[in-house]
Amino acid sequence: MFGYFGPEGTFTHQALLTLSREPARSFASIGAALDAVREGAVEASMVPLENSVEGGVSASLDALGDLELAPLRIVREVLIPVSFDLAARPGTELGQVRRVITHPHAAAQVRHWLATTIPRAQVVERGSTAAAAKTVSDPSSGFDAAVCAPVASRHYGLEVLAHDIADNAEAVTRFVLVSRPGELPAQTGADKTSMVVYLRHDEPGALLAILQQFAVRGVNLCRIESRPTRTTLGSYSFSIDAEGHLEDARMAETLLGLKRICKHVIFLGSYPRADAKPPTVRAGGKNADYRNAQEWLAELRGAMTTRAPGSTSASKRHPSPTVSPSSS
Amino acid sequence: MFGYFGPEGTFTHQALLTLSREPARSFASIGAALDAVREGAVEASMVPLENSVEGGVSASLDALGDLELAPLRIVREVLIPVSFDLAARPGTELGQVRRVITHPHAAAQVRHWLATTIPRAQVVERGSTAAAAKTVSDPSSGFDAAVCAPVASRHYGLEVLAHDIADNAEAVTRFVLVSRPGELPAQTGADKTSMVVYLRHDEPGALLAILQQFAVRGVNLCRIESRPTRTTLGSYSFSIDAEGHLEDARMAETLLGLKRICKHVIFLGSYPRADAKPPTVRAGGKNADYRNAQEWLAELRGAMTTRAPGSTSASKRHPSPTVSPSSS
Amino acid sequence: MFGYFGPEGTFTHQALLTLSREPARSFASIGAALDAVREGAVEASMVPLENSVEGGVSASLDALGDLELAPLRIVREVLIPVSFDLAARPGTELGQVRRVITHPHAAAQVRHWLATTIPRAQVVERGSTAAAAKTVSDPSSGFDAAVCAPVASRHYGLEVLAHDIADNAEAVTRFVLVSRPGELPAQTGADKTSMVVYLRHDEPGALLAILQQFAVRGVNLCRIESRPTRTTLGSYSFSIDAEGHLEDARMAETLLGLKRICKHVIFLGSYPRADAKPPTVRAGGKNADYRNAQEWLAELRGAMTTRAPGSTSASKRHPSPTVSPSSS
Amino acid sequence: MFGYFGPEGTFTHQALLTLSREPARSFASIGAALDAVREGAVEASMVPLENSVEGGVSASLDALGDLELAPLRIVREVLIPVSFDLAARPGTELGQVRRVITHPHAAAQVRHWLATTIPRAQVVERGSTAAAAKTVSDPSSGFDAAVCAPVASRHYGLEVLAHDIADNAEAVTRFVLVSRPGELPAQTGADKTSMVVYLRHDEPGALLAILQQFAVRGVNLCRIESRPTRTTLGSYSFSIDAEGHLEDARMAETLLGLKRICKHVIFLGSYPRADAKPPTVRAGGKNADYRNAQEWLAELRGAMTTRAPGSTSASKRHPSPTVSPSSS
Repeated sequence: MFGYFGPEGTFTHQALLTLSREPARSFASIGAALDAVREGAVEASMVPLENSVEGGVSASLDALGDLELAPLRIVREVLIPVSFDLAARPGTELGQVRRVITHPHAAAQVRHWLATTIPRAQVVERGSTAAAAKTVSDPSSGFDAAVCAPVASRHYGLEVLAHDIADNAEAVTRFVLVSRPGELPAQTGADKTSMVVYLRHDEPGALLAILQQFAVRGVNLCRIESRPTRTTLGSYSFSIDAEGHLEDARMAETLLGLKRICKHVIFLGSYPRADAKPPTVRAGGKNADYRNAQEWLAELRGAMTTRAPGSTSASKRHPSPTVSPSSS
Repeated sequence: MFGYFGPEGTFTHQALLTLSREPARSFASIGAALDAVREGAVEASMVPLENSVEGGVSASLDALGDLELAPLRIVREVLIPVSFDLAARPGTELGQVRRVITHPHAAAQVRHWLATTIPRAQVVERGSTAAAAKTVSDPSSGFDAAVCAPVASRHYGLEVLAHDIADNAEAVTRFVLVSRPGELPAQTGADKTSMVVYLRHDEPGALLAILQQFAVRGVNLCRIESRPTRTTLGSYSFSIDAEGHLEDARMAETLLGLKRICKHVIFLGSYPRADAKPPTVRAGGKNADYRNAQEWLAELRGAMTTRAPGSTSASKRHPSPTVSPSSS
Repeated sequence: MFGYFGPEGTFTHQALLTLSREPARSFASIGAALDAVREGAVEASMVPLENSVEGGVSASLDALGDLELAPLRIVREVLIPVSFDLAARPGTELGQVRRVITHPHAAAQVRHWLATTIPRAQVVERGSTAAAAKTVSDPSSGFDAAVCAPVASRHYGLEVLAHDIADNAEAVTRFVLVSRPGELPAQTGADKTSMVVYLRHDEPGALLAILQQFAVRGVNLCRIESRPTRTTLGSYSFSIDAEGHLEDARMAETLLGLKRICKHVIFLGSYPRADAKPPTVRAGGKNADYRNAQEWLAELRGAMTTRAPGSTSASKRHPSPTVSPSSS
Repeated sequence: MFGYFGPEGTFTHQALLTLSREPARSFASIGAALDAVREGAVEASMVPLENSVEGGVSASLDALGDLELAPLRIVREVLIPVSFDLAARPGTELGQVRRVITHPHAAAQVRHWLATTIPRAQVVERGSTAAAAKTVSDPSSGFDAAVCAPVASRHYGLEVLAHDIADNAEAVTRFVLVSRPGELPAQTGADKTSMVVYLRHDEPGALLAILQQFAVRGVNLCRIESRPTRTTLGSYSFSIDAEGHLEDARMAETLLGLKRICKHVIFLGSYPRADAKPPTVRAGGKNADYRNAQEWLAELRGAMTTRAPGSTSASKRHPSPTVSPSSS
């Protein structure tokens, strides 16, 4: 069974439905949805990771990058266009709306629309857009309308006063399906790898050194986001998505390089990109380039050490001089 | 008159009180507190910028980095240790607490304490810790206790059931006082400069190029945080604090370099560090190094062009050959 | 009067003739030709700097990069295709050539031709190809033929047994005209700037840091050549040519940056490229980019400090808050 | 049998004698000494590589970095302090010396001494210091004295007029013993690896990219020298010595990285440093760091794929969710 950060009718629920129609379990918080994966209560959970307007979802980033919790893996990503409705109890008209309820992120994304369309309406914030819809469905709630996902207005029997009211019509939210460590999703040629890296303390240029680990191997970054390490102000970890799969040589070598110079590296998985966009690989970063270089090195070493068993022909062909300091 | 992101009794209010005891105006949102500065309704407003546990405060980062709004300047920073109380109406005992109300960030910072001390209590989220305290002060609210700042428990006449319940005793929040562009605070030798840079679209290695602008001039970073540009997923701006003042040559040259290679650079001010920690300046980055280099270049140019008015002695000492391609 | 590294009839002489047909003075060594400039005995001297086959001319590189000698400036560069003749006294036939004389660099450039055409000939080295031609012109010299420049075979009355015998038909030598510091040659839009930089001792990554000074300002390198500093093994200076003129903002700023981080920087001049090839300027490196950035910074500073004399209007528009720590 | 760039009595001969007292074969040129190795005529040859005053020895650098010749390997390095004598036929006095003969490199290194001690003496150049000594030993040569190595004055029966006349008493020349590819000299913990890298044509920043391959793996450079590729002016290869052995993980990975981004990489061997100086290894560059990172990656992969044969226990512990796009 899958889990998701609920309640029913959120965009997160909608994201899970694109992958599976099986009954799924909703959790009241992102932390709870991920803890349930760790404990084996669900096979995997869907949580939001970032929004093109609001940015990274801190609760997800922190739960995935926590050094003290059991490791998790992202196995799928889902992109959902953000589409907000203004929904009310049947019979309410737009002109009557005075008190609107919604989640703070949603409020931020429809601010302009509300300010120009129903400027006198007061906006109150609730923990989720689905909870806001549920609240409005109760006539005694004191709220006239909710800003929520289409799935929520349907779910709670509300009537849509206005469709698609987001200020930025292109807004999209990225969700990830998170499981326990297991087999990696197969390489597709259009993959992402996610990780969290912790810098060694107080080293000027440490972030630069990290980015160079990627650049030198020809790996392109998709996203980099700083998070406080929860100790002192000014101490950060970085949540990073990069183009490619752990089975791509350039990515494996980059991870090894990061491991060597960073305080900690948390590997969060390799998985197919939702947009199927192939990677931008810099010169020398293709798997064939890595293979060719390995073959060259093997040949170099072979030339230097090859010796037919029981014969000295190889060393005759390539005798290595035996030199010793002169005694005089 | 100053403004602050209220209501009264929040940590933000407390941060402002460390600078001024004059009556100040509270605003219901960070955006409103900053808009009041833009419009001249207040001289400057105090808003939270980052928390050592929760990370950057998106509303502040986005309002300060918005390309379409009038520019603002940070003129002071204040660090306030985060200290949460569990506060209730007089007469309530710890064992009776079943329903707790607080702000989501506060909830995150006391999660462990609540889970171990009053594991059966249910936690509900409200827009601010001060609002939570106010709610609890009303016996009909249905809530037994609030997690809030000490100033709020005092303000709303609550009794403190437990002091200092934050899981991380070192947690601190950083606030900034923001004004319209005006004279920069004077250099103190321990200053920070803040800015927001927008990368040119879709250039692999663009962030690396930005960090190199700092490194090459010997400027050390304090904080770097990505924010979505609110257009397409994968398009980011970076909010950056660096060590030094605009009047430090290395900082001025770094800003010029960023301006040349970035899509946009928003300068957010230079101001004294709250911790008065002097900067780490890499080799060649001191003001004296810049001055010496400038003098050297001026001498080079002088040697090449100096000419006493009305004389040709300089050119006699250093005649420059006049050569022309041979005609044959 | 101009000087050149002679004797008459060398490629260096030929290079000078492309610029001036005036009588010129020849010097027996590169050092002497440059010392004569320093002492004012000649206005400028032509010396070879690098050859596309043989590489840098150490004597020139070292004399120009010497910290203890008076500074010099390159004011012109000349490219001369390397064209060698096999020249003999009139009457000699190719089949009779047994002993050939030439300069070691010339010998290296015709090695293949000699080995296949007159395999039994013995090659002896002399100080210049012109001296070799002169030697051959003396029947008692014991030499049958010289490998020399066409100008030398004509000069010494030799007959050409074979034209253009260089193994690499594209070989070219670069010569520079060197004067005392004076007015820089004017910017042409296709210029080079030459310099010598000395690294601080024993700093891993010092060369990388130097290259980054160029890269960050968008300056492209044409040539970089290491030279020992003549102290301990493993201590080097670097002789560098880069695209652009000291009057290009990116070049001036790069030189300032080098001056700050290097032990020594010797500026060797800005001068038009012989091939008139315009520079490759990386994003943000154009003079207009530098000007725009400077204007932006000036505006920032203006906004912050502008004040009409005798009025307070500017500060009224942009009042800067005066804050002081609370006394309580 | 070993070979060396002769004749007998040169510093190169002296360098070989520090390794072996066996009879050895001298060659008239560096190219001939190395060709004899390629053809198997000698086991290995000693040639000069660089001098702390004169810089790289072009003939050696070019012969070792030639893409069209069979590959060779450096197996030992020898450092010989440069010590020049002024030597004459018995009976000659210092005051009588008018014509001095020597090799151009030697001339450069004693220039100051000659100019101050016997300012009126004329200096003529010959192909080697040993040849100069031989010339002087012939009374009919017209030369009074030779600047040569002590071994040569002894060899040709000359009397030393002045010992140790080099201007820089610290001058040292580095020689290398070169063999055909065979077994690498064993790691000693204080090794060097030599190589020649050819840049891809006309890529601004290509040298920077090469240096970053070293820096990112924590490998420190000892020497970098540009050589023209013998095609067009402005096309270079780089001859590089770096600290470490091919069996050091950081060096192997650096070579692989270079191979991927360069046009050509010629590996010239790993061998013990003559000065036995241990390497400066940057953070994360030790063999243990490489091993730890590899183990971490193996564990990551193990956690993801481990499955006891014939059981499903591993996959039960870490079941990987099987997700498929919803059909509706």
